[in-house]
Amino acid sequence: MWQLYQFPLCPFSRKVRLLLAEKGVGYDPVRESPWLRRDEFLDMNPAGQTPVMVHNERPGRPMIDSMAICEYFEETVEKSAMINGTAADRAEIRRLVTWFDTQFYRDITAPLLKERMEKRLVLRESPDAGRLREAMKAAVSHLDYIDYLLDHRKWIAGSTISLADLAAAAQISIADYLGGIDWKSHEQTKRWYVGMKSRPSFRPLLAERMEVVSPHADYEKLDL
Amino acid sequence: MWQLYQFPLCPFSRKVRLLLAEKGVGYDPVRESPWLRRDEFLDMNPAGQTPVMVHNERPGRPMIDSMAICEYFEETVEKSAMINGTAADRAEIRRLVTWFDTQFYRDITAPLLKERMEKRLVLRESPDAGRLREAMKAAVSHLDYIDYLLDHRKWIAGSTISLADLAAAAQISIADYLGGIDWKSHEQTKRWYVGMKSRPSFRPLLAERMEVVSPHADYEKLDL
Repeated sequence: MWQLYQFPLCPFSRKVRLLLAEKGVGYDPVRESPWLRRDEFLDMNPAGQTPVMVHNERPGRPMIDSMAICEYFEETVEKSAMINGTAADRAEIRRLVTWFDTQFYRDITAPLLKERMEKRLVLRESPDAGRLREAMKAAVSHLDYIDYLLDHRKWIAGSTISLADLAAAAQISIADYLGGIDWKSHEQTKRWYVGMKSRPSFRPLLAERMEVVSPHADYEKLDL
Repeated sequence: MWQLYQFPLCPFSRKVRLLLAEKGVGYDPVRESPWLRRDEFLDMNPAGQTPVMVHNERPGRPMIDSMAICEYFEETVEKSAMINGTAADRAEIRRLVTWFDTQFYRDITAPLLKERMEKRLVLRESPDAGRLREAMKAAVSHLDYIDYLLDHRKWIAGSTISLADLAAAAQISIADYLGGIDWKSHEQTKRWYVGMKSRPSFRPLLAERMEVVSPHADYEKLDL
């Protein structure tokens, strides 16, 4: 059985979990808070980031980096191909996965996590209103870009659902949870996102998010 | 014919160029200075980053993101496979490519480019000595990690050369160009890097120069 080290608001873990669910791959989620920089976790992954996956039959070989993990399951599990089509189609899917994993994350998800999660849970500081405003402003232009993509295509990267949709939905869902998304005047993206939310792969994550959304920092300790 | 938008000190373009040379894929390099944020370039790539590749037979479909580009040529050109082996081996290669593209870049290459290139060419400011010291200190621990990898493996990600070696050499060569690498007490990594430098794919890149910013005296030498 696979174990997946993650925390509920990790967008990269969420992308992997969506892929695993679409492909019907079972796993045990293991709670990891990368900001604690646990020695055992750093030994597994010197980059100190979630997600990490470990299989109990090969404990010494952790799988690290959300894109490397996604490519692995895409290669080994035929069901629900998510990096699909011609080589050029696949390049476009990967470009957009990187777009959401780096640009969207850097501009929106990362500052929201910093201001609304880390400052509350770890640093015990108040959020910086200016940075929150900036992230929410950035979210508007990112959603404009997604609207533009969806004007030309049925899904984010082309005519079929792909890893780009999972990557986008993963980032957006965290930003949305943290109150960073204003859905006004983004009908295209909203319709697409509602579709993503209603997928069986997404519903358990949304439910879990509600738990984790809890403002009580110790809430999770109850079900350790 | 492919056109590759790049500038001489772009580590991501360099990774792609090493791969193309190893695979024997011809291309025209096109000089692009992403810091100028040219409208035509932003129209091609909204992320505003090099490398971008365009084929003259399909001008409307630029290929964007260095990893997506590498995966494309890995899929379409059989010669010199660089993401090779079992699915687990390939995951380890991709993990290390991401390691160099993000961790090494963030800690070392990016601050060196900022302090020693951008400040000189664009901002006309003096470099921040503290930041340079930090980047050079980070380089020591990154080289320790590479030493550790090469204690256990012949190449960075396993028993054969892979995209991880190209990604590592691309980042290190830019850091070295900018005087950020101290080769003392890193014999393992030095031996590996001299091997990389002497490859026919690497030599033309070493001969290139960035305007205004010169490399240190031993940059091209094969006997460090």
